[in-house]
Amino acid sequence: MAAQAGKLGVVASVAINLAALALYLRRRYSGDDVAGGRKREEEGEELAVAPSSGKPPVTPDSVINLDHGDPTMYEEFWRGDAGERATIVIPGWHTMSYFSDVGNICWFLEAGFEREVRRLHRLVGNAVAEGYHVLVGTGSTQLFQAALYALSPPGAAAAGAPMSVVSPVPYYSSYPAVTDFLKSGLYRWAGDARTFDGETYIELVCSPNNPDGGVREAVLKSGTGIAVHDLAYYWPQYTPITVAAAHDIMLFTASKCTGHAGTRLGWALVKDRAMAQRMNKFIELNTIGVSKDSQLRAAKILKAISDGYEHAPAVGDRSRLFHFARRKMMARWGALRAAVASSGIFSLPDELPGYCTFAKETVAAYPPFAWLRCEKEEVYDLEGYLRECKIVSRGGAKFGADGRVVRISMLDTDEAFAIFVDRIAAMK
Amino acid sequence: MAAQAGKLGVVASVAINLAALALYLRRRYSGDDVAGGRKREEEGEELAVAPSSGKPPVTPDSVINLDHGDPTMYEEFWRGDAGERATIVIPGWHTMSYFSDVGNICWFLEAGFEREVRRLHRLVGNAVAEGYHVLVGTGSTQLFQAALYALSPPGAAAAGAPMSVVSPVPYYSSYPAVTDFLKSGLYRWAGDARTFDGETYIELVCSPNNPDGGVREAVLKSGTGIAVHDLAYYWPQYTPITVAAAHDIMLFTASKCTGHAGTRLGWALVKDRAMAQRMNKFIELNTIGVSKDSQLRAAKILKAISDGYEHAPAVGDRSRLFHFARRKMMARWGALRAAVASSGIFSLPDELPGYCTFAKETVAAYPPFAWLRCEKEEVYDLEGYLRECKIVSRGGAKFGADGRVVRISMLDTDEAFAIFVDRIAAMK
Repeated sequence: MAAQAGKLGVVASVAINLAALALYLRRRYSGDDVAGGRKREEEGEELAVAPSSGKPPVTPDSVINLDHGDPTMYEEFWRGDAGERATIVIPGWHTMSYFSDVGNICWFLEAGFEREVRRLHRLVGNAVAEGYHVLVGTGSTQLFQAALYALSPPGAAAAGAPMSVVSPVPYYSSYPAVTDFLKSGLYRWAGDARTFDGETYIELVCSPNNPDGGVREAVLKSGTGIAVHDLAYYWPQYTPITVAAAHDIMLFTASKCTGHAGTRLGWALVKDRAMAQRMNKFIELNTIGVSKDSQLRAAKILKAISDGYEHAPAVGDRSRLFHFARRKMMARWGALRAAVASSGIFSLPDELPGYCTFAKETVAAYPPFAWLRCEKEEVYDLEGYLRECKIVSRGGAKFGADGRVVRISMLDTDEAFAIFVDRIAAMK
Repeated sequence: MAAQAGKLGVVASVAINLAALALYLRRRYSGDDVAGGRKREEEGEELAVAPSSGKPPVTPDSVINLDHGDPTMYEEFWRGDAGERATIVIPGWHTMSYFSDVGNICWFLEAGFEREVRRLHRLVGNAVAEGYHVLVGTGSTQLFQAALYALSPPGAAAAGAPMSVVSPVPYYSSYPAVTDFLKSGLYRWAGDARTFDGETYIELVCSPNNPDGGVREAVLKSGTGIAVHDLAYYWPQYTPITVAAAHDIMLFTASKCTGHAGTRLGWALVKDRAMAQRMNKFIELNTIGVSKDSQLRAAKILKAISDGYEHAPAVGDRSRLFHFARRKMMARWGALRAAVASSGIFSLPDELPGYCTFAKETVAAYPPFAWLRCEKEEVYDLEGYLRECKIVSRGGAKFGADGRVVRISMLDTDEAFAIFVDRIAAMK
């Protein structure tokens, strides 16, 4: 097939060290009854991708792709004791129906998932769930679109005035793309919230902020504007938990909380019943609900996290996800700051400390992305500059910022992160 | 919570026979490690929903809801031997990444799922998969939107001329709703294909057709129009397989093939590489991929079906899904036709026989929906008329047809179907 040749071309472009690959293949999981490894044979050579990442293992010569916030850092935790408690078994006859509970506004929401979401927020104290409706989405990306749909009156479209969607620079690069890709008559991207001049709008408040980790509040205060709070990163491994958030619409995702990006599961806490109904309508029309398999699995994963704090003996970080992840983030930020100091041509945002009500101590913030700036006068396209060193990042322009800055994922594998840091340290 | 009261109101409106409920509760699955039953206690009384349907069990007094095509009929099959082979175990650390294969156009497509999709089409002979790209979607609903996106040039939107989307009456009621809910500038619903007058369009060809089971080909033949084939029901339990379909874009879904609607998994076979890339872009922007848990499970389910034909001894229909489902459909259509004859006020489309290359014999079609017409002069709102008998159906107007006809799901539980048929037989 023509497609096959193209696929292999891309895979082949990522250099593969055959010794590392052989080691990897020996370690590769190959059970039959368990969703396992896979391989592709072509022209006598076997190329392999990791069963949980779809990417070939990295070597010192590899292209290191830190463009996406792929949270494979968490795999180590889930391979341990806690992971066993998160294993899910789904019999062939289970959850076949479209419905989970015909009496719920969100009729495709699995009760066990809702229960564990509420329990986790109580444990962490990062958001008020009591008195809120819980909605489930195919990642928080779908819930973000559901919020735009719910907050944009159809009448406005008829009058030719779609709702303006804004966020302060630097904003998450997907916000403009996802808002505008269908050229909806209901809403349209209107750029930087700080320079927006209008009375009605939806302001996206991402806190801690993707890409720069800043702690944010809504910047616009007009009476008819509405804020949607994207709290994907408001978890104790990334930032001090300073208050239980209680906004009208709050979005969360398993990807950045537990590391299970492939499960594509997000949730929203929504105060107003009519708003929850309208957001749910979007998901009904868009995908007729959300994978129950993902919900069952996510319920088990969230349960393992809460159990790790509430029921397990305190034996180091092996059963405590947020402690495990915070330790990793601290080590990585330490290594990156040392590399930046050693190089001398970069800068990073300052560390922001605060008292964390969950950790019960003052801790620093360790954002999931590094917002890396190059101080060399002649480098005005840092994304391109890093690509010459085989580092794939996301350039500032995509976030409404300038080209001297890039976003770098801090959540990739230990191997990829170590190579990345070495390369940064060596750049003069 | 206010929501809780509303939820219980709806649940309570479905009459519950407590004796049946007690029996059901005794039979209810209650394992801990397995995604299981659930219960809600409120004011001292326990209301229960079935672990795989979210709906209370029906009794002779119940409202029978056959509005959705909820395929719970299939649960019986998957509770048997075949179901054990379809059980999936997913360890906590598995498929955490966004990526399944960075080298594939559809980079979130699990290789095992793609393999089983291709194998099943080879086994059944209902579509040519060789030489086609396989895309995965959150149900075929998402892939339908991906096709609209891929087939609508963005330039047209700029010129204020969105692509017209058409389908011959009666068309699937979701087509207009899903096409228009975001008021996209790229495409818009333009109604009945037979009366459409234009040069550029997307024609949705659903065959066998939802709602009336008709075997269809594209009715428009303009040089610049494009057809999307929705083949959700082109499986041997519903219709004779007469040819291996080989259209440009073909959509399928697990819901109606295996009965796993809750898994929300569909797939597309797409001939053109650029078209596949553009459809994939939609899914990237809409949900950043598709649940890997659903893909792993669906791969296991499709494998159990193919294995049931290729490896299992032929011991009746217990391991042969299509034979099991065809036998059920035949019995149900027999019972419904007898009830319609006994009542005397209804009519149904004729039975369409054909030679099935899969069954290797001439068989009748047994569509997943009954397109039921009332011949009584004074009944011009059949949906409302049936609702008085506690039968919930979907009225003809939603399909572009008249109100004297409704769509009825033939795929619900044995219990619900039996009560429905009894009520129809008694209507004079």
